[in-house]
Amino acid sequence: MIKTIFWEDDAVVMIDQRLLPIEERYVTCRDYREVIAAINDLAVRGAPAIGVAAALGIALGSLSINSLSRKEFEPAFYRICEEFSRTRPTARNLFWAIEQMKRCWAANTGTVADIKKALVAEACRIAEEDIAVNRRIGLHGKHLIRDGDRILTHCNAGALATAGYGTALGIIRAAHEEGRKLHVFVDETRPVLQGARLTAWELQKENIGMTLITDNMAGFLMHAGKIDRVIVGADRIALNGDVANKIGTYSLAVLAKENGIPFYVAAPLSTIDMSIKDGTEIPIEERSEEEVLYFRGARIAAAGIKACNPAFDVTPHRYVTAIIT
Amino acid sequence: MIKTIFWEDDAVVMIDQRLLPIEERYVTCRDYREVIAAINDLAVRGAPAIGVAAALGIALGSLSINSLSRKEFEPAFYRICEEFSRTRPTARNLFWAIEQMKRCWAANTGTVADIKKALVAEACRIAEEDIAVNRRIGLHGKHLIRDGDRILTHCNAGALATAGYGTALGIIRAAHEEGRKLHVFVDETRPVLQGARLTAWELQKENIGMTLITDNMAGFLMHAGKIDRVIVGADRIALNGDVANKIGTYSLAVLAKENGIPFYVAAPLSTIDMSIKDGTEIPIEERSEEEVLYFRGARIAAAGIKACNPAFDVTPHRYVTAIIT
Repeated sequence: MIKTIFWEDDAVVMIDQRLLPIEERYVTCRDYREVIAAINDLAVRGAPAIGVAAALGIALGSLSINSLSRKEFEPAFYRICEEFSRTRPTARNLFWAIEQMKRCWAANTGTVADIKKALVAEACRIAEEDIAVNRRIGLHGKHLIRDGDRILTHCNAGALATAGYGTALGIIRAAHEEGRKLHVFVDETRPVLQGARLTAWELQKENIGMTLITDNMAGFLMHAGKIDRVIVGADRIALNGDVANKIGTYSLAVLAKENGIPFYVAAPLSTIDMSIKDGTEIPIEERSEEEVLYFRGARIAAAGIKACNPAFDVTPHRYVTAIIT
Repeated sequence: MIKTIFWEDDAVVMIDQRLLPIEERYVTCRDYREVIAAINDLAVRGAPAIGVAAALGIALGSLSINSLSRKEFEPAFYRICEEFSRTRPTARNLFWAIEQMKRCWAANTGTVADIKKALVAEACRIAEEDIAVNRRIGLHGKHLIRDGDRILTHCNAGALATAGYGTALGIIRAAHEEGRKLHVFVDETRPVLQGARLTAWELQKENIGMTLITDNMAGFLMHAGKIDRVIVGADRIALNGDVANKIGTYSLAVLAKENGIPFYVAAPLSTIDMSIKDGTEIPIEERSEEEVLYFRGARIAAAGIKACNPAFDVTPHRYVTAIIT
């Protein structure tokens, strides 16, 4: 299984997702600021993986706090947590992971050395638990997949979006492990092409049959009766079941409903935001227009053309058949 | 106004749309086979422009027929018409233009020299009429645009998709010429990016306010109340009003209906196929998977990944608010 992000020799190691699938390169972050940069630049992405990156990054940052007294350690620790909370606004798991780390700090009354050890242990536990939770999502969700199903997925909700195994792809993986025949249609997922670059690569590694499509082909395939179900991940889920996920998810959900196709969302409990009633309260990250205007350094429109780049959208719960957790 | 394709000095001249917006280069075809290659390779595209290209190309081809007798001229002429009919299966205007040229041949009882002259005149008339028809579509359609409207368009149904002026963009142009304030959201239109490369470039030349988006952002913007109407072109329209247009159009139509937004289709009468009752009879062109897998020579997915590439989809008439012709 692909190891997305992990702790090794007092450093945070992650596969650089910007280079995939052209190059499989692992980067080692020895400074927590490198982890922050990796989250901002999408070297690591996917809500659960961002949560794990924040936990490991905060542990790494805490090791660098030189103070020996608990009192001096505290503001430095909170500042690091604050820096991580400013990276990506939509992913709920980021804030959940930061809360877990703060709770670990608050619960530990030992020396600074004890606290640092506890924070590293807690971050590693969060990473391991993420994989275990994904495997359980796979166990729960695989019963929804029938032999011969043609499944559409959007963006990457695979091993790379988590510490390992994946949420939406975890379900597909689990059904495939059980010997069910299936075919996956993979949205390329503009502008950053996580589907084309990451999901297609993961499925290829597992020998799961797959066809890459552009995002605007999904509706055509549904209308043509070529899609049996849609499974996606989530970046944040409101209490009423409204789901924030990669831009384009809302469109797929509307099209699935119009064509009578089940629309499933797979996510760990840490994606659910207990503090918000519905999707209107979910902040939508607006990223740089350069992501839309350039492709590998080549501009796709004339100079001077402006673009917008909302990275996520919110799917009202009435379009969601089930949330699998 | 941009001159897309025209007759000059016994040759067919066209702007090479594959190079836009990086380079504005006109190519001169002196052999009808070059016109066929230009249609196949998308140097010229857009249903009305393909019709004009076929008419001019057949005229060019007829000039190269050496025979002096009407009897010998006939099979050569029909073979050229046949070659053009094999280029792109979905665009109705292609077949309409070929029929016009055959009718011109059949109606002319003069010498081969007379016939050649008549065929060139007929092709030029088709090109000029296309611009005139587009201007009339603009006059009819501009009343549907209100001051302050935010309009979504897909692919390129502009001057470049026609001999000049455009269908969907013709309406936008006409409303703009009348001084109406409007803002256009332009779908980039994967895989060939006609929106990003061509539509954005045309709007920029006219100083019409515009924002480029990826195709999967359109639903989000509609749901957020940021789109007042959708206007697209068409490649073929069935008698019941079902519309074939660039892949992704069906999705936009469903999303527009779900969000209570008018969905307009602009096309000349030559796009209507009187021989088919509904959209199920419209052939959908499947193009090379390379168009999906590569972007300016850079592969977007791992080697071995397969893609599909239906170039068009059919929007059932129940999603279409009006056809403007």
